[in-house]
Amino acid sequence: MQLPVTDKPTVNSITTTVGEYLVSQLKAVGVRHVFGVPGDYVLDLMDVIVESSIELVGTCNELNAGYAADAYARLNGVSALCVTYGVGGLSVVNALAGAYAEEVPIIVISGAPRTSAKGNNLLMHHTTGDYNLQLSILEKVTVAAVTLTNAEQAPAQIDRTIAACLRYKRPVYIEIPADMVAQPCTMPLSFERPNPVVSDVQALNEAINEAVEWLENSEHPVILAGVELHRYGIQKKLHQLVEITGYPITSTLLGKSSISELHPQFIGNYVGALSRDYVKNRVETADCILCLGAIMSDTNLGGYTAQLKESQLINANSLKVKIKHHYYSPIDLGDFIDGLIAKLSRKSSESLDIQPAAELLSKSFEVQPEQKITNARFYERMNHFVGDNSTVIAETGDAIIATIDLLIHADTRFIGQAFYMSIGYSLPACLGAALARRQNRVILFIGDGSFQMTCQELSTIIRLGLNPIIFLINNDGYTIERMIHDGSYNDIQPWKYHQLPQVFGESLSCQVRTEGDLEKALEMAAKNRDKLCFIEVHLDRFDCCETLARLTQAVRRN
Amino acid sequence: MQLPVTDKPTVNSITTTVGEYLVSQLKAVGVRHVFGVPGDYVLDLMDVIVESSIELVGTCNELNAGYAADAYARLNGVSALCVTYGVGGLSVVNALAGAYAEEVPIIVISGAPRTSAKGNNLLMHHTTGDYNLQLSILEKVTVAAVTLTNAEQAPAQIDRTIAACLRYKRPVYIEIPADMVAQPCTMPLSFERPNPVVSDVQALNEAINEAVEWLENSEHPVILAGVELHRYGIQKKLHQLVEITGYPITSTLLGKSSISELHPQFIGNYVGALSRDYVKNRVETADCILCLGAIMSDTNLGGYTAQLKESQLINANSLKVKIKHHYYSPIDLGDFIDGLIAKLSRKSSESLDIQPAAELLSKSFEVQPEQKITNARFYERMNHFVGDNSTVIAETGDAIIATIDLLIHADTRFIGQAFYMSIGYSLPACLGAALARRQNRVILFIGDGSFQMTCQELSTIIRLGLNPIIFLINNDGYTIERMIHDGSYNDIQPWKYHQLPQVFGESLSCQVRTEGDLEKALEMAAKNRDKLCFIEVHLDRFDCCETLARLTQAVRRN
Repeated sequence: MQLPVTDKPTVNSITTTVGEYLVSQLKAVGVRHVFGVPGDYVLDLMDVIVESSIELVGTCNELNAGYAADAYARLNGVSALCVTYGVGGLSVVNALAGAYAEEVPIIVISGAPRTSAKGNNLLMHHTTGDYNLQLSILEKVTVAAVTLTNAEQAPAQIDRTIAACLRYKRPVYIEIPADMVAQPCTMPLSFERPNPVVSDVQALNEAINEAVEWLENSEHPVILAGVELHRYGIQKKLHQLVEITGYPITSTLLGKSSISELHPQFIGNYVGALSRDYVKNRVETADCILCLGAIMSDTNLGGYTAQLKESQLINANSLKVKIKHHYYSPIDLGDFIDGLIAKLSRKSSESLDIQPAAELLSKSFEVQPEQKITNARFYERMNHFVGDNSTVIAETGDAIIATIDLLIHADTRFIGQAFYMSIGYSLPACLGAALARRQNRVILFIGDGSFQMTCQELSTIIRLGLNPIIFLINNDGYTIERMIHDGSYNDIQPWKYHQLPQVFGESLSCQVRTEGDLEKALEMAAKNRDKLCFIEVHLDRFDCCETLARLTQAVRRN
Repeated sequence: MQLPVTDKPTVNSITTTVGEYLVSQLKAVGVRHVFGVPGDYVLDLMDVIVESSIELVGTCNELNAGYAADAYARLNGVSALCVTYGVGGLSVVNALAGAYAEEVPIIVISGAPRTSAKGNNLLMHHTTGDYNLQLSILEKVTVAAVTLTNAEQAPAQIDRTIAACLRYKRPVYIEIPADMVAQPCTMPLSFERPNPVVSDVQALNEAINEAVEWLENSEHPVILAGVELHRYGIQKKLHQLVEITGYPITSTLLGKSSISELHPQFIGNYVGALSRDYVKNRVETADCILCLGAIMSDTNLGGYTAQLKESQLINANSLKVKIKHHYYSPIDLGDFIDGLIAKLSRKSSESLDIQPAAELLSKSFEVQPEQKITNARFYERMNHFVGDNSTVIAETGDAIIATIDLLIHADTRFIGQAFYMSIGYSLPACLGAALARRQNRVILFIGDGSFQMTCQELSTIIRLGLNPIIFLINNDGYTIERMIHDGSYNDIQPWKYHQLPQVFGESLSCQVRTEGDLEKALEMAAKNRDKLCFIEVHLDRFDCCETLARLTQAVRRN
């Protein structure tokens, strides 16, 4: 999976060290925090990070560092992970596979045994004796991978690897033997970042003209926004396109929050048969679907219940524009949207049949204080609670499905691993997200089974004094699995979850069993904006959202 | 790293299903528990396991399942791990690399998307879209790897893969798409397990004669026992050899407990410069070192401080016998030891200079109740506490180094990841070990930094009602790293560790700050043999064992 990156000229100048050059380039591309776990092969490099203006964030284990770096990259545009050899690097494979699948740019750095140990084939600790093992595995879940064994070549190798990360928005891997960190090397004068994709101008124009002609002649077009709008940071172009055309806009689950979901043209998320009926019908009966930067995965498409025909689709993403059954390539997604903005005219709202998703908020929420809290009522309440300037994270399982219709306001971002779906992702992601956008409070929805996977990272959130609101949905086991296929393996040990923050440090926590309890918990969270609030919500074990019941039926068929 | 396994004839007979055949073969080779985490691609197979007499042991996450399976295999001879695709299989890579390095036979089974999904190149959840990814990664940390895509071929493929696991004592990988589980297939009449190694008789005789001649003519021989004596289950042959020859015996750290350390000829563990002076001198000045089944890794040899010359060595392991600078191969290690037993005569104990390690116990331990507990006094006390019929597990870090001189009694087994050294290994290992040998109480020594890595598995130990004694050594951070190379990254969040068992369930726990506290804790543990006892021992952050200080100096030089 190693993709080509164009070489670029470097101009020689002053002397630095390999470690210092690497850290300076992390900073240059916008990395402000590095996630990782120490280990002897990487301590020299960690010293360089600690001495820089970048903050080294120690997590409890490496997989969690990988998840934290993933969420940080989704919000910050790029992130970095720093681990030791073997025990560290081989513990992050799953996090990187998820980042690879969902196009998340993480710069993964691993220490390694000294080059002298490699040469002598010594059986060093944290190795199997094969010093090529980690590179040969990590290159399968990254778009560029390199071991720095020659100091003079290192700056160019670092530049090319980081460039691939930025260009393809996927993880890359840099291995640095312990004795290379302090090796002197010549610093290039400049680091030219390649443009992600350079459009072929003639192909671009032809694609724009064809798309414009079709869209102008369509009666019921719709825009389907995908995740690459986030990754390439072109949400504003989308907003402009929506405003100029007047078209209704929907989003895949991964693409959620690429536009404010209170926008009057936003009709709700499209997730195949899991969408609300109006959204499903509006999208599937459109005479032209302008699909922008979407990953066409099963869960993104409602377990393959989506009824999208290629004959309805203009499918533009970071690699190409496909109209019906023919391709245009290479075309930069941003260039394509700019072309549409320049040429499309506005359609009248009467003809477009737009029911804004924001109407979901028109019904007020009447608290029934003594009433036992249910899944449906909990998320209904959340739709009135989650506002502007937040980061909403939904864990794989019932939570991510239930948040399909949770409206994401302007300046709020939504994170969910909607394609790869690794449970346990979201708690470390909460750490990464909180550091990436400190001014925006993180609101996390996570189930009990998922929480048990990576629970220790709550400790790091407390250690750093971060202020998320964590809703721990305790429904006594793997509810999403119970819905798919129940068995004794879906039972888990019942923890006293709300007591855990006190074991890890000092923080606010409470339990919710009734609607009245929930109101008190929300008041606590609102009053303590600068503190972690851990809220354990007790639901019955089969009390999942209605949509999950539908999804699991669809998954069972595949 | 895929090693060849001889094909064997199979005789056709009655019909079964692929899933049932696989589970029947796990049982046939002695697997009584399968460790894993459910996920939709593997639920059909899990149903087959649940319906069998094998117990499915759910862990909190997959890496922990891998560690548990590793320890189980060390004691049981083989183990099995069962996970879902991607999020599961790619989370166990580090556990498998450790098992590969230390020769631990684990049968790893992963569910996978249905064969129809693969054929259509659909982007299914838990994948990156590359349906060969997991196999291509896991085949690098296993000695055989297969995807079952044809039901009629499946039994032979399963047989060959399991045979490789038993032959090479290393992990193997079996991938089973969800729709293959219930596919009918023909059951072979018999499953012939290949002998691990078949000796070349002439090479064997020549090697035995040469070794015997040298040993008979040597004045100060010593036996150095390694880990393969455990793996190939030939500890009894070692015992016989020791008794017949009268030679002093020492052990590598990985090979620890291959003979009772109270045996009058056992002189202590040999770990290079980290050994006690007498052990170091006795081994390094021997005129012939009979090294049996050892892995020559850095930590096993005291950070390469071991002074062993090839001209002193008869180095026999599962692949070959090397005498000075020439090899004999293929030779089965057990056959070689049998040959030595048959031909070697006994040397007089006067000439051999044997100081039994058991003399360490001659000094009684006088409790000073008000005295603050120290590292040295804690492990001194442990040498009088740890007795017969236990399983001792020492975590990587100060604990494994401190237990070098902890004497392991007959019928007690020692487990420590002394080569690969992945921190966090030992808590899930405690789960696996307790299930593998339920009659033998597990005594675990684990540091706080390591414990944070995999802490949730304490919940599974509680859920299953297991009865280990867990000494949580709280020295406020990564002490082994502080000794190597200190920095802010070695600080961790201080938890109230002793409160954690109560969050996960009901169990006994206490804190130890003085020698008097420790006595009370040991009494609690002795009185409650059927219960988990969680003992948090507070030590100063730099209060490590003397040996660790020496090891870390050695590691820093490499």
